[in-house]
Formats: sequence, structure tokens, C-alpha cells
Amino acid sequence: MEFRIEKDTMGEVKVPVNAYYGAQTQRSIENFKIAQDINKMPKEIIKAFAYLKKAAAITNLEAGVLPKEKSDLIGQVCDEILEGKLDDQFPLVVWQTGSGTQSNMNVNEVVAYRAHVIHGGQLTDKEKFVHPNDDVNKSQSSNDTFPTAMHIAAYKMLQEVTIPGITKLRDTLAKKAADYKNVVKIGRTHFMDATPLTLGQEISGYVAQLNHGLKAINNSLAHLSELALGGTAVGTGINTPKGYSENVAKNIALLTGLPFITAENKFEALAAHDAIVEAHGALKMVAVSLMKIANDIRMLSSGPRAGIGEIHIPDNEPGSSIMPGKVNPTQCEALTMIAAQVMGNDVAISIGGSNGHFELNVFKPVMIFNFLHSARLIGDGCVSFNDKCAEGIEPIEANIKKHVENSLMLVTALNTKIGYYKAAEIAQKAHKEGTTLKEMAVKLGYVTPAEFDEWVVPAHMVGDIK
Amino acid sequence: MEFRIEKDTMGEVKVPVNAYYGAQTQRSIENFKIAQDINKMPKEIIKAFAYLKKAAAITNLEAGVLPKEKSDLIGQVCDEILEGKLDDQFPLVVWQTGSGTQSNMNVNEVVAYRAHVIHGGQLTDKEKFVHPNDDVNKSQSSNDTFPTAMHIAAYKMLQEVTIPGITKLRDTLAKKAADYKNVVKIGRTHFMDATPLTLGQEISGYVAQLNHGLKAINNSLAHLSELALGGTAVGTGINTPKGYSENVAKNIALLTGLPFITAENKFEALAAHDAIVEAHGALKMVAVSLMKIANDIRMLSSGPRAGIGEIHIPDNEPGSSIMPGKVNPTQCEALTMIAAQVMGNDVAISIGGSNGHFELNVFKPVMIFNFLHSARLIGDGCVSFNDKCAEGIEPIEANIKKHVENSLMLVTALNTKIGYYKAAEIAQKAHKEGTTLKEMAVKLGYVTPAEFDEWVVPAHMVGDIK
Amino acid sequence: MEFRIEKDTMGEVKVPVNAYYGAQTQRSIENFKIAQDINKMPKEIIKAFAYLKKAAAITNLEAGVLPKEKSDLIGQVCDEILEGKLDDQFPLVVWQTGSGTQSNMNVNEVVAYRAHVIHGGQLTDKEKFVHPNDDVNKSQSSNDTFPTAMHIAAYKMLQEVTIPGITKLRDTLAKKAADYKNVVKIGRTHFMDATPLTLGQEISGYVAQLNHGLKAINNSLAHLSELALGGTAVGTGINTPKGYSENVAKNIALLTGLPFITAENKFEALAAHDAIVEAHGALKMVAVSLMKIANDIRMLSSGPRAGIGEIHIPDNEPGSSIMPGKVNPTQCEALTMIAAQVMGNDVAISIGGSNGHFELNVFKPVMIFNFLHSARLIGDGCVSFNDKCAEGIEPIEANIKKHVENSLMLVTALNTKIGYYKAAEIAQKAHKEGTTLKEMAVKLGYVTPAEFDEWVVPAHMVGDIK
Amino acid sequence: MEFRIEKDTMGEVKVPVNAYYGAQTQRSIENFKIAQDINKMPKEIIKAFAYLKKAAAITNLEAGVLPKEKSDLIGQVCDEILEGKLDDQFPLVVWQTGSGTQSNMNVNEVVAYRAHVIHGGQLTDKEKFVHPNDDVNKSQSSNDTFPTAMHIAAYKMLQEVTIPGITKLRDTLAKKAADYKNVVKIGRTHFMDATPLTLGQEISGYVAQLNHGLKAINNSLAHLSELALGGTAVGTGINTPKGYSENVAKNIALLTGLPFITAENKFEALAAHDAIVEAHGALKMVAVSLMKIANDIRMLSSGPRAGIGEIHIPDNEPGSSIMPGKVNPTQCEALTMIAAQVMGNDVAISIGGSNGHFELNVFKPVMIFNFLHSARLIGDGCVSFNDKCAEGIEPIEANIKKHVENSLMLVTALNTKIGYYKAAEIAQKAHKEGTTLKEMAVKLGYVTPAEFDEWVVPAHMVGDIK
Repeated sequence: MEFRIEKDTMGEVKVPVNAYYGAQTQRSIENFKIAQDINKMPKEIIKAFAYLKKAAAITNLEAGVLPKEKSDLIGQVCDEILEGKLDDQFPLVVWQTGSGTQSNMNVNEVVAYRAHVIHGGQLTDKEKFVHPNDDVNKSQSSNDTFPTAMHIAAYKMLQEVTIPGITKLRDTLAKKAADYKNVVKIGRTHFMDATPLTLGQEISGYVAQLNHGLKAINNSLAHLSELALGGTAVGTGINTPKGYSENVAKNIALLTGLPFITAENKFEALAAHDAIVEAHGALKMVAVSLMKIANDIRMLSSGPRAGIGEIHIPDNEPGSSIMPGKVNPTQCEALTMIAAQVMGNDVAISIGGSNGHFELNVFKPVMIFNFLHSARLIGDGCVSFNDKCAEGIEPIEANIKKHVENSLMLVTALNTKIGYYKAAEIAQKAHKEGTTLKEMAVKLGYVTPAEFDEWVVPAHMVGDIK
Repeated sequence: MEFRIEKDTMGEVKVPVNAYYGAQTQRSIENFKIAQDINKMPKEIIKAFAYLKKAAAITNLEAGVLPKEKSDLIGQVCDEILEGKLDDQFPLVVWQTGSGTQSNMNVNEVVAYRAHVIHGGQLTDKEKFVHPNDDVNKSQSSNDTFPTAMHIAAYKMLQEVTIPGITKLRDTLAKKAADYKNVVKIGRTHFMDATPLTLGQEISGYVAQLNHGLKAINNSLAHLSELALGGTAVGTGINTPKGYSENVAKNIALLTGLPFITAENKFEALAAHDAIVEAHGALKMVAVSLMKIANDIRMLSSGPRAGIGEIHIPDNEPGSSIMPGKVNPTQCEALTMIAAQVMGNDVAISIGGSNGHFELNVFKPVMIFNFLHSARLIGDGCVSFNDKCAEGIEPIEANIKKHVENSLMLVTALNTKIGYYKAAEIAQKAHKEGTTLKEMAVKLGYVTPAEFDEWVVPAHMVGDIK
Repeated sequence: MEFRIEKDTMGEVKVPVNAYYGAQTQRSIENFKIAQDINKMPKEIIKAFAYLKKAAAITNLEAGVLPKEKSDLIGQVCDEILEGKLDDQFPLVVWQTGSGTQSNMNVNEVVAYRAHVIHGGQLTDKEKFVHPNDDVNKSQSSNDTFPTAMHIAAYKMLQEVTIPGITKLRDTLAKKAADYKNVVKIGRTHFMDATPLTLGQEISGYVAQLNHGLKAINNSLAHLSELALGGTAVGTGINTPKGYSENVAKNIALLTGLPFITAENKFEALAAHDAIVEAHGALKMVAVSLMKIANDIRMLSSGPRAGIGEIHIPDNEPGSSIMPGKVNPTQCEALTMIAAQVMGNDVAISIGGSNGHFELNVFKPVMIFNFLHSARLIGDGCVSFNDKCAEGIEPIEANIKKHVENSLMLVTALNTKIGYYKAAEIAQKAHKEGTTLKEMAVKLGYVTPAEFDEWVVPAHMVGDIK
Repeated sequence: MEFRIEKDTMGEVKVPVNAYYGAQTQRSIENFKIAQDINKMPKEIIKAFAYLKKAAAITNLEAGVLPKEKSDLIGQVCDEILEGKLDDQFPLVVWQTGSGTQSNMNVNEVVAYRAHVIHGGQLTDKEKFVHPNDDVNKSQSSNDTFPTAMHIAAYKMLQEVTIPGITKLRDTLAKKAADYKNVVKIGRTHFMDATPLTLGQEISGYVAQLNHGLKAINNSLAHLSELALGGTAVGTGINTPKGYSENVAKNIALLTGLPFITAENKFEALAAHDAIVEAHGALKMVAVSLMKIANDIRMLSSGPRAGIGEIHIPDNEPGSSIMPGKVNPTQCEALTMIAAQVMGNDVAISIGGSNGHFELNVFKPVMIFNFLHSARLIGDGCVSFNDKCAEGIEPIEANIKKHVENSLMLVTALNTKIGYYKAAEIAQKAHKEGTTLKEMAVKLGYVTPAEFDEWVVPAHMVGDIK
């Protein structure tokens, strides 16, 4: 490879001759040879930086501290980044400095040097027209840009991937709940037969879970909408022009179309990332819900002959390399694996979040890496599960009917007629002797056949159907 | 010990002759010999059941399905439970059936048999005037009572212990932030010297963290206010009179003074405990904040001679059994241990929450056990930390002054005057040669002494003090 | 309450007149009002301290630095503690100083003052014959005694409760595996019907899991056998006589009957508790196994009429307060709740373990609190599950037979005869048309009836039975 | 893109015309659009499959169930995979079926179709010379191949990356411990000044931690060395030739040079992945150790003027985009972020591990994904930390000297001379009045100046230096 020489405050560094990045990016590549093939800084963070750098340039221009030409050039390169034209210029990994300084400098360098080239310069020029620190990073510090990029990336991912994904699945389940609201089936508690409900009611519980999950995510957005930018090095806002915090937040809101505001307290915004902890808590809650829902669906569809078999889900692919004809609930498996991952990510985030010290938390990259991973997995996972599984859920009426008719727990309907103890006696003896409830109820003399038929009606045991 | 014979649907059981509980409680004692000395079902759950059983009795009376005499007797025993008069009648442990059925039956039995005694009966009477299942448990199932008790206990603990505790600490820290808003000190990022801020600003970050934590807890209360009661066995409300769900929630709200409502979806309320997962997510977020705050405070007070020593915290007790005169930041230690516990409890709760199946989650006891533990620890821990540590925080002015004056990071003020690179050169050379910044800045010829004194003023580097 | 005045290096403190403890214990009671009713320092730690203090007194006597009379008195009080005679003298909670200094001093005070009384003195005497620091704590520091007590308590609990409990359950399951080694049943993968195996084989997997778990626990004992004692304040062993570390470990080994040795590196032994992290990792692994085993057992026993119903487990108690005659797999529920708790405890321990700083880890109490909790729960839980569930497992032959005969996955036996694709066609068409495999196989012309009967024999599909 | 038509048992699928994979891989691409750009199945798993498929082909040849030509062709393609020549043929993600069936089939298809091409065929041929299921997958099932690949990949990563990385860091720290074994410095407990030790002793604690960690990892290798292969569909070994399990394990051991053996119990090996849980427990323990070590090092190097500043670590890069001349402990930050990640991964693995059901655990991909991630991060992270930080650790003698000389905790040396109480009085008064210990000790009349100088010698307080 050919190289050129770049310089930073520590001296000279050899950089690939055509790279838009400079000395500090190169130092990071060499200093952090950790999982470089698999753990790149998430691209969403790079794009969030593009919004941020452009907004900062505009705000600096408006404040009169950056000339229009430089501001425009910076904005132009940021647009290129957003369009994905410079994707290969961001080679750094998550496992770098905990403030994300190196990724901030990576962006500063790429923006400055690319701007210099657009402006007509050469990468090999010693002086560049736009300076990474003095221009691109003007009125900023890694300490306020990186957490700002975290919030932009997190908020966008939630809005664009996570919430739509959950909502899509919620809508499908709501439709299924309506479709099957009158399909009376056996209930199960403790994995044991219980009183009946309808399939629609059962599914409505999943809908309620996801609705609560969406509410919880939405509750966390307010904290995420607070941006650290303007706090600079330690939260005091040193080296920023007057009104900068509010104005730059406004510009970021304009560029992203999301309701960002400046954080009321910048010290918290740099030194703690409780907003990430809080929002990921909501994602973890959704993961908990999805584990439950996917488990239920795979157990309800289990069989085909030696399982529960009350619903059918789509046959998407051959399920076994050895057992011919086998089909498995693979979408449930992907979704429950995702749930496990999110629950693990939550711990990584909490540990990172709890380890801020003094004016800075230096677990920023690991926190946002895990956050974006979870948010993406839940969003994508819900869509996949929706499209390839939930939409195809159908009751298997024959099995449903057989299970509900055989159930001993219908006896519960007799509690208010003959009391809990006599009802229990009927169920226990029917179980022991293998009879139907009715046979035993009549045999014990507690009810007449006509009373039994009047009182024990599964469809009357499912309450009001809404 | 003397015994009497009690019966349930499975047969006879020997019960201590004076115990108010009956056969099912006794079976649970014998069947679950697991940590019986240390893991009793939390007393807050028992008290929540007392509210619930009284409210159910009133609601059943109003619905015309329970006679007034029985309803009154039930209410009277519930009052005794709330007054703590029957504390020794609830011997069961957390590690029982996952629906909490046995604790529900424990309450049913104690209420019924104590009512029978109040009514003039004997514990040894074969028939009791009030029946555990048919009267005390009327219109209920363990499956809806236990989650209702969970929400009552959780909500009450948050309102009475957790929120007041956090608020108390927040208020003290807010006062300290105001008191020391002009004490200029060095900032630290990455554990390294950074630009200055004031002690008040530093502490204001903690205040912001706790304010956000309180908001997050409050956001979770709506879900917790939803009660499962009325869902009975599987959520359909079998064996409840008309209007029961709404009415019993109203009565619980009246008795507790808390804004409980009936859950919109009872299937979710029985089969999932996402409300507990959600609210504990907020507690975990607060734990994350407290870890940060307590760590900062112990490091800022470290020393007395070989540490940072910028604040003094109260000397509460001798700190060492071997090192005479040693005093340690013990309140910080208790609080950070609590944070670790809460972060662990969060995982137990998430795992429990994710493992509901079909119509019931049977990890109820372990979930509420961990929830109440965390809520209590945070509340108590904040009060202890407040009273014995935070209130006594005082700056050690001499050390603060020394640190800020020696700092090389004051050079940041020169960025906007001479550029980042020259400023870096000053700092690096001053560090290497052990000089002051001013000496080096002048020596390198970048500024005059007068300029330095005008431009590099720590008190001007801390931004607007609010 | 009546009080007497006690003194420590900070001054006077009022102590209950008859308490054997003194000023420092009392300060801790007042300074740490955190969950005092539920989170006492585990009694196993107090007993471990009794072994340790006695061993230290003997070692000090042998080293010639403590007179025989004092050594004997100390030993005598330690014996009283071990006999449980002084249980109410240890009121402190887990949430105290993170070094456990206060519990060490609690023991020092109780031993000294009780010794003084045995020696003929009065609690109100200003000078006591035995001094808490200079005599009972001689050659010790909290910093080496508390971690020593942690290892003693942890090792003993593993040996006396955890390992025997797991072993008991393992033995029962091994017997069941042998008993049912020829009961051919359907296999299930992905919750879907698969090729057959025997019930004994299925259970043998659980046995293998527990055997591996026992091995893992045993692997962790070597690290736990290392004692910090002799390191004193920071690991250097200041204020200890020559040979003390080795000798006191030998004496602790003698008194406890367990193979304790002195830690090779005392700096690690004070500043890190990786031995606790390591051993709890093994406990967590067992929890993971138990979750799997208990889940399987409750699903295999699900029903009685709408579940899998292939095994019967004991009916221990009525399972529902509303559904008469219902019986639930409650032992499985307790055990899986325990598994969730242990997995949560693991996180608390890891966080505590990772937060040692410089010469000391000050998360000691929370670490051992969680460790002992898990070790106890697994031990007790396995015994309860064994006695009330596993021992009573019995196959329900009718259901087992029905499931295996209906299975479409028997087709797998044809792979090596007609190839995977044709076999798949048979299974798919049989499923679609609701026929038996044989009918479809013959209909498609791939095998003759005789071939089918020869080739597709469930009992031949289960491999070698050992 | 151009396509060709491939078929599986479910029908036709369009596959990119030049892809070596077939219908089932393509189905998975389309069915699991989940994080496809970031969560590919780890390449280590693909390579493990290559060893496995080659070993299976050899074993099948030896058993007489596969012709030599096919066996050789399979082996040849596997070698190509190991050489990385077919890397782009494995597009599937982690979030697929939980048995990893689709990745198994991906390998089967690529091996079969590439073999067909090597053999002279065309990808568009309807019949291929080597069949994915009947030849490449012969005597195998996804259910035993995927867990086998998990163990091969995990074991190799531990041996090749993780253990060497930890060992390298351990060796460097051991050298530092030796180099600085006589540098007397102040000890710190509770972040507070304590009695002295040497820098070498302090570092020796880290060495001991890593030694214990290495032991723990080694302890877990035995379980990892057990291979599931030969269990096929449910553990019974259906469709395998006699002696297959033992022979295929032997062949894998030969090919990999690692001591693999066949699992004693195949039911455990398919349905549980406790070996992964166990081994990751050891990795998590190492993460806990690394968090401690890296935290210490960054705090000891904190400053340069307002921190502890007792050691110097290499200046690797400019530390701040706003504060000129700032250098940060970035390697410590990467390593502690890694520790947080590993602790989170541990929870994901435990949850996955606990959710096996019946004959199969279907959280295989998420478990090995997290395992390999952790193993890689620890290995790479230790090397990076070693090369860029640990090797450059140097004491800053001036600060070390100043801290130890000022320390009040040297008073501990007087305990055995004048007793703990008088020693405490000296320290407390010296602290209050800001004097040296000696001044106060003499002033109080407890020692003469000569006695003080004789008794209080830091270098005599550090015990035996080994």
C-alpha cells in the first residue's frame, strides 16, 4: 500500500495515500487491533455524526465563528456521508477510547480532508483548507459530540426500525385476536389444563404486552431527545458561542426531523448515559414480552401428532437435515434468541452506565453498540416474525375442540352451584377413573344431567368477548 | 407441639393446634423446605392481600353474593393483618408454587379461621363459619389475586419508601449544588485532569440523574396501577359477578389511597408481569445512577493525604480493625453494594418475566421478592446515604485550589486564541518540563504574560452558573 | 431499654446494657438502617468467623504473642457462637462497610466482652480483660478476616448443602434413567415430534448435566480453599508473627475438617474475590441445568388431558383456589424460580467482583450474601425437588405408546433405504392427508408393507441402551 | 442478478446462478432478514464445520458407507473452506433456526455443489454427483453437527486467541511485578490511604488473578472437548454406522490437533450446552479480573497533576479533540468496555443455555455467537492492552515517595508497640492538626523520636518480598 504522511499533535503518522482520514484515525487502527473484522463502530453512529457536524457548522456560521465557505463545505461532506458515499472511510472499532474521541476525530478528519479535496486541494497538502479540530470540531468536544451522536442514532433507530417493527407485529396479532375471538379453547396454567378462554383472548394478551412495551419505549424518548452538544469538554460549554447549545439542538432537530432539544443539565449528559440505560430497559421489557409470545406460539403449534397442535404456523423451510418432512417453528427460535441477546445486552449497558466517573462516562461505545444491536434486532425480528409466522397463524379446530371437551377444569363452573369441595371431588374421581366430568358428576349425585348441560358450557365460561 | 386435624380436597393434615392457618398452608410448609429461615414471603405481600381480601369482601357484599356478616368478619381480620397482629400466621416461603397459590390460600385460611374464632367458633370445629375458598376467595383465583397483591405491594413500596428516599437524597444534593455553585475546581475526564467546572455543577449532574430516575419510576406507575383482579382463573373472569373487576379495583383504591384501576386486559395481567419488569427497569436505572454518584463521592473524598481529597464526608465510625485512625467512605460502599444487588435482581426479574406460559406466569413470587428487595434497598439506602454522608459533604478548599491552579488543561482556553495545535504544544512541553502553563506559553512566544492572565481564568471557563 | 456506655477510638456510644457487643457494632446499627429486618449478615459468616477467631487465637498462642488464658477464653466464646448460643449478638446487616469491618468488629467485641464476663468481669467494666482489637483481632485485619470467613462459609455451604443436594437429585434421576431405559417414547426437537428414544435415555441427559455441574463445582473448590488470613491490612502481612499465614490456615483446616491452605498471593486474596466469582459461575451453570430439567419434567407431565402427559409426578397439594381438582407441578416451579434467582445473583456477584480497587475489594458482603443464597437455594431446592417430585416420576405408558406410534418422524429410519427426499415425501403427504406413515409409504410405492414393518421399528431406532 | 433453480423437499427456489449454496440456504436468506449486514454466522463456526464434514466423510469411508471418490471430494472442498476460498458462500445470520440447521445445510450444499463442480459438473445440473443430505450430511444431523461445531470453534478460539492473549499479559505483568518488587508505595483500601506495600506486590495480585483465570479456563476444556457428533437427531445415534461416534471424534482430533473425544452422553450434548455455559463462566471471571486490573492502572496513572500519578503508562494518541495536550488511558477503557460486554454476553448465554427443551436446545447460534465474541475480545483485548499499555508501565518515583512519606497509616506499625488506641489517637490528631505522624507521636509522648524512626519504616512494613 502507498502512504502519505499526516501529523497530529504527537507527530507524524503514515496514512494510506488515498484515505480521507488522517493521523488520529490511523493511530487508533494501530492501537486497537481488537475484533477489527467484526466490531466496527456502528454505521448509525457515523451517520449521526454527519447530522451533528453539519448542524454544528451551520450553528457556528450563524454565530459568526465559522466562515460560510467552510460551513458549506462541511455540510456538503456530511451529506456525502449520509448518502453512504464515504462508508469505507470509517474503519475504527467499538473497542477504542471510551469517550469515542477517536471516532469523533475520524469524522473530523474525513470531513476536513474531503472538504479540502472538494475545495480543490490535494490529500498530500501539508495544510488543509478545513481543519479537523479548529473547524469541523469547532464549539465541540468528543465529550459532547459522541453522546449526542448516541442519542441521535438511538432515537432514529427506535423510530425507524424498532417501533415500526413492534407495531407491525402488534397489528397482526390484534387482527388475529379479532379473527379468533370466538374460538373457544382450553386454558392452561402451570402447563396444566385450566378453564377455557378463546384463542382471540389468548392472543389479545400478547397485543396488550406489545402495547405496554410501545408505551414504555415512548416514555423513554423524552430523555433520549436531550442532547449533550454544547457541553464541550466537561459540561460547562467552554469554547462555545452564546446560545450555541439551544441553536445546535434546533438545527439537529431540523436536519433529522426528530424533536431533539438541548439537555437541561450537560454534566449529566456527559458523565452519565442513563437515557440509554432507561430506553434499553424498555427494549429489554419488550424482549421479555417477545420471549413469552414466541414461546407460547411454538408450544401451541407443537406436534404435529405428539404435541399440543392447536394452531398452525407457516411451513417455511425443511426443518431437519436428517428427519425428512420435519418443519419447525424457526421464526419463534430466532425471536427468542433475540430476546436472550437483548437481555444480555441490557447487562452490558447497565454495567457501562454505572461506571461513569467524575465528568465523563467512558463506556460510551460499548453502550451504544449494544443499544443499537438490541433496537435493530427487535425491529427486524418482529418484522420477520410477523411476515413469516404471525400472519399465518391459524387455529386447528379439531384439536382445539377435542382439548376443550375433554377438560376436567370445566368443573369450575360448578363452584357457585355446588361449592368448591364437591366440584373437586368430581374432577378428581373423573381423572382417576378416566370418565367424563358429566358422567362422574351425575354418578356422585351432585347434579342432574340436565343441570350439568345447562351449567357447564365452555362458551359461557369465557366472559365478555370484546 | 400439639396438633389439630384440618382437611382440604386432598385429605387430612395435622396443623399446630393454635395456628389460624389450615391444611394447605401446612402442606406448603412440609413440601417446600427451602431456605425457610431466610426467604419468607415478603410481609408487604401479606399486607397487600389484606387490602385485597377486604376489598373483595366488600365488593362481593355490594354485588349481593356474600352476606354482610361474613363480609364484615373478613374485613375485620384483614384489619388485624394490616395492624400486624397476625404476623406469625404467614410462615410460607418464596420458593413455593409459582402462582403464589399457597400464599393466597394461607391468607384465605387465616382470614376464614380467625373470622370463625371472632364469630365465636373454635379452631377445632370441623365446619367453620367462613370458608377459605367459597367465602374469602369468592370471585377470586390465586391467578388474579397474587398479581394484584404484587402490584399493590410494589406500588406502595415505591410510594412510601423508594420515591421518598430518592427524593430526600436529591433534595440534599440540590442544596449542595446551590451551596457550592461558585467553588471552581478541576474537571476530570478519563480520570485525567480536564478543564474546570464548579463543585456545584458537578453535583448538579447527580441531581439531574436522580430527577430523571424519579421520572422513569413515575412513568412506570401507570402500568403498575392496573390490577389483575377480576380475571380469576385464566383472565376470563369466570365466577365473578357483573361489574366486579371495576368495583373491586375501586375498593382497593379507596382502602389504599392509591390510584388503582382494573387492568384493561386480564390475559396479560395474569400471564405476564411486564409491569414489574418495566418498573424494575426504572429501579435498575436508579441503581446505575447511584453507583456513579457514590463512586464519585468516595473518589473525591479519597485520601486523606494520597488521594484526591477535594471534599470531606462525615467520619461515621472507625474504619479499620488494624489501621488506627482510618476512616472510610462506608455509606458509599453500602450504596454501591445495593446498586450491584439491584442490577442482579433485575436479571432475576427479567428471566422470571420472560417465562410466562399460556395463561399464567408462574415466576410470580421470585419476581415480587426481588422487586420489593430492590425498592426497599434503594429507598433505605438513599436515606442512609443522605443522612450519614451527603448532608455532610463539604469542599476542602485548599486541595481544590491547588488542583485547579496546577492544571495543564486550562490551556484549552487558548484554543480560540492561538489554535488547538499551539495550545497542545504548550501543554505538552509544560508537562514534560514541569513548568506552569504560563511560563511555557510565554517561553514559546505564543502569548504575552498579560494575555495569558486575561485569557486563562478558571472562573471564566465554567460557563453560566445557574 | 437500658444502656451502658462503651468507647471506641471515636468516643462514647450507648449500647444496650446486656449486649455483648460494643461501640462499633452499635455505630453500625445506627449508621446503616437499611433493610435491617430482612438482610442480616448471614449466620454462616458469623460461624465462619468463630472458626477463624479461634484458629487465630491458637496460632497467636503458638507464636507466643497471646497468653494461654486469653487464647482459651477466645476459643471458648467461639465455641459458644458455633453452638448458636450467641445468635442474637450479631445484629448487623449486609449493607454496611464493603470490607465487612463492622461485622469483624462485631465478632471481636462479642468475643472480647463475653470472654471478659466468663473471666468474671462485668459488661460495665471500663477495661475488659480481653481487648477486641489488641487480643481478639491480633495478627488480623478485617481485610483478611472477612474474605477468609467468606471462603470458609462458602466452602462449608457447598460441602454440606449444595453438593449433597445436587448429588441426591442426581442419584434419583440415575435410578429413574435405569428403571425406564427400555421405555421407548417419542423424541421432541424444536417442540416438534422427532425420532424416538427411551425415557431412560432422556433422563440420562439430566444425570449427565448434573454430573458435569458437580464437576464444575468441584473444580472451583481449590481456589476457594485459599485463605487470605495473614495478609492483614493490605496483603503484606504487617503485624503478624513469623509463619502465621501457614499456621493459621492449618488450624482452620483442623477446626473445620476442610482442606484450607493459605493463599499463595495475599494481594489477590484481599483485592479480588475471583474465587467467589468462579465458584458461583459453577452454581449458575447448575441453575441453568436445573431450569432445563424442571421445565422438561413439567412439560412431560402436562395435562392431564390437553397436554403431553407422558409422565406422572406426585400430587402434592391442591393446585388452585378456584379450579377444583387441579394439581400443578409446583416443585418444578420452585426450582425454576430458584434458577432465575441464581442467575440474577450471578450478575450481582460479578459486578461486585469487578469493582475491587487497589488493595481491597469493598463489595465483600454483597458477594457472599448472594453466594450463600444461591448455594443454599440450590441445595435445598434439589432436595425438595427430589423428595417431592423426582422420586415419584412414573411413565404414563398409554400416552407414551400413542405418541410414538402416531409419529411421522419414524420415517427417518427409511433414509438409509430410500433416501432423504423420498422419505420426506412420505412424511409430508401422510401429514397432509392424515394417514399413517405406513399407509402413505406403501401408497407411494416406495416400500412394501413387509419392508416397512421390518425397517420402521421404534425400538430399533434408539441405539444402544446402556 | 441471474438465477438458477434449486430444489429441496419443499419445492423450487431461485438461487444466484453462481452461488455454490442451494435451496435451503436461499430460503434462510429470505426468511431471516434480521441484521444481515452485521450478524453473520461467525466464520469460526463455518471452519469448524469444514473440519467436521471432512472428518465425517473420512469416518463414513472407513465405515464403508461412503465411496472414496465422494469422501475425497468432500475433504477437498472442506480444505478450500479452511483456506478461506469460499468465504462468500456462507451468507446466513445468527438469527435463524435455533438448531443451526440452516447453517449446517448451507455447508452441506456448498460442499456438495462445489464437489460436483470439481468433479466436472455444472451448478445448473439437476442432479449433483454429491448430495447435500445423503452424502455430505451422512451419519449426521444438524442436531449433532452444530453443537460439535460449537465445541470445535470454542476450543480452538480459546487455545489460539484467548489463552495466548491472557498469558501474554500475565507474563508482562509478572515481569513488572519482579521489576518493581522493591518500590515501596502507599497502599489504598476503600480508596483511602492504608499501610504500604511495594508496586511489585500490587502488580503480583493482578498476576495471581490472571493465573487463576487461566486455571479456570483450563478446567472448562474437558467438558468442551466432548463432541455431540454421533448422536444425530435426538442423541440415539440413529442412522450412524457402528463405532461412528468414537471414530469421528478421533478424526476431528487428528484434523484439528486438539484432544476431542466423543461425549459420554449424547442426550446432554444435544439438549444442553452447559459446556458453553461453564467455559463462558470462566471467561466472565477473567473479565471481572480485567475490569479490576484496568481500573487500578488507570487510577494509578491518573493526573498528571490532580490525580494519583504513581505510574506512567504510554502516551499512545492525543486524548481530546478540545483539550490540547491531553492523554488518556485508552487501553484501559477498551479493556473495561470489553469486560462489560463479556459480562452481558454471559447473561445471554445463560438464558440460552437454560432454555433447552426435551431433546434439543434451540439457542445454539446465539450461545456460540456470544461465546466466540467474548473469547475473541478477551484475547485481542489482552494483547492490545499488553502491547500498548502494560509493557510500558513505569513507576513515577517522586509521587510514590511523597505519598508514602505523608501517610498517616504508617502509624499501624506502632500497634504492637503502644496498642491500637494510642496509635489511633496519634493518627487522628496528626490528621486534624496537619502535622506529620512523628511530630504528633512525640508530642503526645507515646514514643521518642528515636523509637519512631526505628519502628516506623515503610520498607519494613511490606513483609517478605519474594
